[in-house]
Amino acid sequence: MNILQQRIIDDGEVFPNNVLKVDSFLNHQIDPHIMYSIANDFYQHFKSAGITKILTIEASGIAPAIFVAQKFDVPMLFAKKKEPSTLQNQEVYTELVHSYTKNTDSNIIVSKQFLNADDKVLVVDDFLANGEAAMGLISIAEQAGADVAGVAICIEKSFQNGRQRILDHGYEVYSAARIASLENNQVRFNDGH
Amino acid sequence: MNILQQRIIDDGEVFPNNVLKVDSFLNHQIDPHIMYSIANDFYQHFKSAGITKILTIEASGIAPAIFVAQKFDVPMLFAKKKEPSTLQNQEVYTELVHSYTKNTDSNIIVSKQFLNADDKVLVVDDFLANGEAAMGLISIAEQAGADVAGVAICIEKSFQNGRQRILDHGYEVYSAARIASLENNQVRFNDGH
Repeated sequence: MNILQQRIIDDGEVFPNNVLKVDSFLNHQIDPHIMYSIANDFYQHFKSAGITKILTIEASGIAPAIFVAQKFDVPMLFAKKKEPSTLQNQEVYTELVHSYTKNTDSNIIVSKQFLNADDKVLVVDDFLANGEAAMGLISIAEQAGADVAGVAICIEKSFQNGRQRILDHGYEVYSAARIASLENNQVRFNDGH
Repeated sequence: MNILQQRIIDDGEVFPNNVLKVDSFLNHQIDPHIMYSIANDFYQHFKSAGITKILTIEASGIAPAIFVAQKFDVPMLFAKKKEPSTLQNQEVYTELVHSYTKNTDSNIIVSKQFLNADDKVLVVDDFLANGEAAMGLISIAEQAGADVAGVAICIEKSFQNGRQRILDHGYEVYSAARIASLENNQVRFNDGH
């Protein structure tokens, strides 16, 4: 069991409808040790892939993504969920993304200035469930003509279809913790832990 | 001139109404070197203050704050701008914050679980202008009964009243770059650069 899995067991809380709350260390209060350890794990896995840019989405993706960017020594770029006034007169890549947690649709937006066909992109996010955010980020990278090296995820809910959507689209998914089930308020990981 | 000031001169863009766009390195695409350097600067300044928690607000505060948290070896906590479904049944600290950039009001929210009277808080954010976000975060720390060690800012617009509001409230403001003026599309720093 890695340190993220152990922390999920120790401090994660399971709620009805397959909700796993990890906001004591991952997406509200954040433990920089855990986050750095995850980022280092992603780096070890993708270090030979020629990554030029880390792409994530606000807000919970930013903390893991900035550590990953530091490890790779490349810029991090985060997609914004609606068009802020300082981007209004610029050309942007955009994609519609549905949030099942919040039951809202957002346009996610990245300035064309910062992503192009010379880039090799690693997509990073805190959670993978239905894959909406990850597929949105992939679409943005593809709109830019960039290569996608893969998708790196802190916690994957492997019982939902996000991983399969990304695999079907032709890209690798690498997750620091893969959760097979949250049934009976119990966290069970894919590797049998 | 420090490396942040130099980068603002090299890559910042000044727009009408005192808008300084730094989204090529600070708040859309993020250069981890610059961010780490700023975080280290904050750490050197506040390292004897007994900080137990770094408090910021989504989204642009997260990247500097997580590096600062790593330096201090304490958790980082980011306020959310509206109540997500996973927080709905919890007790939260909340404060109303106005965004002059977006001309919107948001409730910023922090779970009571993660902040209390034993904490000594360093407030971190990317920009300080009118001080709305910083004063909101200070209010949340005060609601928790926590001590506030000060406010650490990447870029301060010293010609707006945010710094004075925080000083009047009794707290220190430490900024990596203080901008005296953006008149005539020219960045002029407070230290004369």
